[in-house]
Amino acid sequence: MKKVAILGSTGSIGTQALDVIESNKDRFKVTALTCGSNVRLLAEQIRKFTPALAVCMDKKDAAALSAEFPKVQVLWGGEGLITAAESDCDILLNSLMGMRGLVPTYHGIMAGHDIALANKETLVAGGSVIMEAVKEKGVRMVPVDSEHSAIFQCLEGNRDKKIKKILLTASGGPFRGWSLDRLKTVTPEMALKHPNWSMGRKITIDSATMMNKGLEMIEAKWLFGVDIDDIQVLVHPQSIMHSAVEFCDTSILAQMGVPDMRIPISVALGYPDRLISDGRELDFFKEAATLTFEKPDMKVFKCMKLAVDAARAGGSYPVVMNAANEVLVEAFLKGRTGFTDIGDNIERIMDEHESISEPSLEDIIEIDRKTREKVEREI
Amino acid sequence: MKKVAILGSTGSIGTQALDVIESNKDRFKVTALTCGSNVRLLAEQIRKFTPALAVCMDKKDAAALSAEFPKVQVLWGGEGLITAAESDCDILLNSLMGMRGLVPTYHGIMAGHDIALANKETLVAGGSVIMEAVKEKGVRMVPVDSEHSAIFQCLEGNRDKKIKKILLTASGGPFRGWSLDRLKTVTPEMALKHPNWSMGRKITIDSATMMNKGLEMIEAKWLFGVDIDDIQVLVHPQSIMHSAVEFCDTSILAQMGVPDMRIPISVALGYPDRLISDGRELDFFKEAATLTFEKPDMKVFKCMKLAVDAARAGGSYPVVMNAANEVLVEAFLKGRTGFTDIGDNIERIMDEHESISEPSLEDIIEIDRKTREKVEREI
Repeated sequence: MKKVAILGSTGSIGTQALDVIESNKDRFKVTALTCGSNVRLLAEQIRKFTPALAVCMDKKDAAALSAEFPKVQVLWGGEGLITAAESDCDILLNSLMGMRGLVPTYHGIMAGHDIALANKETLVAGGSVIMEAVKEKGVRMVPVDSEHSAIFQCLEGNRDKKIKKILLTASGGPFRGWSLDRLKTVTPEMALKHPNWSMGRKITIDSATMMNKGLEMIEAKWLFGVDIDDIQVLVHPQSIMHSAVEFCDTSILAQMGVPDMRIPISVALGYPDRLISDGRELDFFKEAATLTFEKPDMKVFKCMKLAVDAARAGGSYPVVMNAANEVLVEAFLKGRTGFTDIGDNIERIMDEHESISEPSLEDIIEIDRKTREKVEREI
Repeated sequence: MKKVAILGSTGSIGTQALDVIESNKDRFKVTALTCGSNVRLLAEQIRKFTPALAVCMDKKDAAALSAEFPKVQVLWGGEGLITAAESDCDILLNSLMGMRGLVPTYHGIMAGHDIALANKETLVAGGSVIMEAVKEKGVRMVPVDSEHSAIFQCLEGNRDKKIKKILLTASGGPFRGWSLDRLKTVTPEMALKHPNWSMGRKITIDSATMMNKGLEMIEAKWLFGVDIDDIQVLVHPQSIMHSAVEFCDTSILAQMGVPDMRIPISVALGYPDRLISDGRELDFFKEAATLTFEKPDMKVFKCMKLAVDAARAGGSYPVVMNAANEVLVEAFLKGRTGFTDIGDNIERIMDEHESISEPSLEDIIEIDRKTREKVEREI
């Protein structure tokens, strides 16, 4: 039995991970679950999966849960999250949303746990610190993002082979082919309708701005040790090919499948085994009968370009870029700022930033906090 | 230095293999070369690659070569070919055409050599005997066919994983979409023009009838230990995806690249390393911008169906099917029979055959010989 702790168990990835675990009861035991404010769903999950530890954000919620589940240790807040990350398990699935995921990931690694990573901001903001910790502790980091899971699968059996290029696919989001002027008219309702994937709100907006692809490029750079300029984005509207790797002999391996996050989740949780799924198979005579690829438009979707710029510049630029994006996406969802203002403001904030090289975890947390305050003030 | 012996070095695969070896002089040493009648090209190759052993088919040719290259051991005929297969090397590339490849493959395996197999008839006719010998001798058999190389690459790192399906791609040949009536009008000139691959004459005709795909299904069945009904053919006119594997979790790995046989050849010769190539890379914004997949038409291209029938029926049916096909393709190329007569006659010959179960190597050779005589008589 593999012991699994899940940070963010009530979110999109968390609930789908529990689906996978439920279909493979003989393989997995849930040891810890954490949520933000959705304590009602957490309570259901506790009933079903009987973890030893549960964490929510609010103290009052924790007290109520504790009364309801006297056998379960219930904690709350940031400290509770870190306790969950450090708690006894074989694999820690981090499916928290945004920068909040960084510190728990770090503590999970330092506790010697293998990490199933669904929190890309962990690597965007803290790539250097995190990958050093992974190396030091000798733990395994398996990506859960469909794209990075695809690359991970293509590299299996080829880990020591020379990579020529990573081909990162992108659906292109709901506004593929739009002009910059038209993009200015985008409302939250429009941006929240993703053509292929059902995901959380923040990542759905990131997909619409294509910032998501920029974040994924940085994530790939850290996970697979490649140069940002050796990562090529392929806009692939069908979301069937989830990414690919070109090796030094020009041979390309690609991973494909129906757009269903339970596949990459099961790859991460089951690794090194592949779990048996009774899910729908890809049909090459229907949804995969025509696959197309095109160049991303980095001029219109400037967020992606800004992420690449941040990765190239290095230092604390990616921290600032990521913090500004998180605040601006939240502001956009609340109707406080426009769609194209997200990129324009990130650009300005990055321009105004004085980068430091090799930021420590404390530096990253501090720069993140200051950037958020600055952006909040200036929106 | 890896010592390489090449059977059929003057053919399409043989010459391209020597290209690969020439680009990787520090890795490979050619120890033996063999040809059929193209002794002029063999002489050039001997000059360039200085093998210890050279074999041609004709005694007179051998004498002339021996006079020209006094330091090289020159042999001739079938016995010479077997000596080459058994000669000291690390890997034996068998790129002979047709059933003639079977016995040398067997001798190469029994001599303990790893095999780079570009001769599919070896496994179509002798799959059971050959795979048993591979197991007994503990040698490695790496396929050179672009499709089987693709599958081999997808399985790397997944050899112990449960395969759900093999997805074998097919260009569909020059007559994709044609009706049976129109197919009756096909001449050798028309059939020899393959849209994507430059190959030998026999395999080009097999591609046009789609018998090639049937032979490849049987080859895949033996190489990868799958049931013939778990192999799905995808007609993919662009020849960019060279085949794929679906695993038990519905995740699919596919191998892609420009249609250039030097890639699978380099995978086979270099294994377990990947050789560095300066060849053209696949361009997803040009030739790979649109990839399409469709069902094969087994009614019009009945050769493919006959191969599947032979594989399902087992015993000596695949031997007969293969022998009949070789004779009929040769007859078609000489204008002695029509294009659709190939399938019709194979079907008849198979119907008339009384299969034996678990044929030995001797049985296979005998049944092959008798079938050829019968077909020759009855054309």
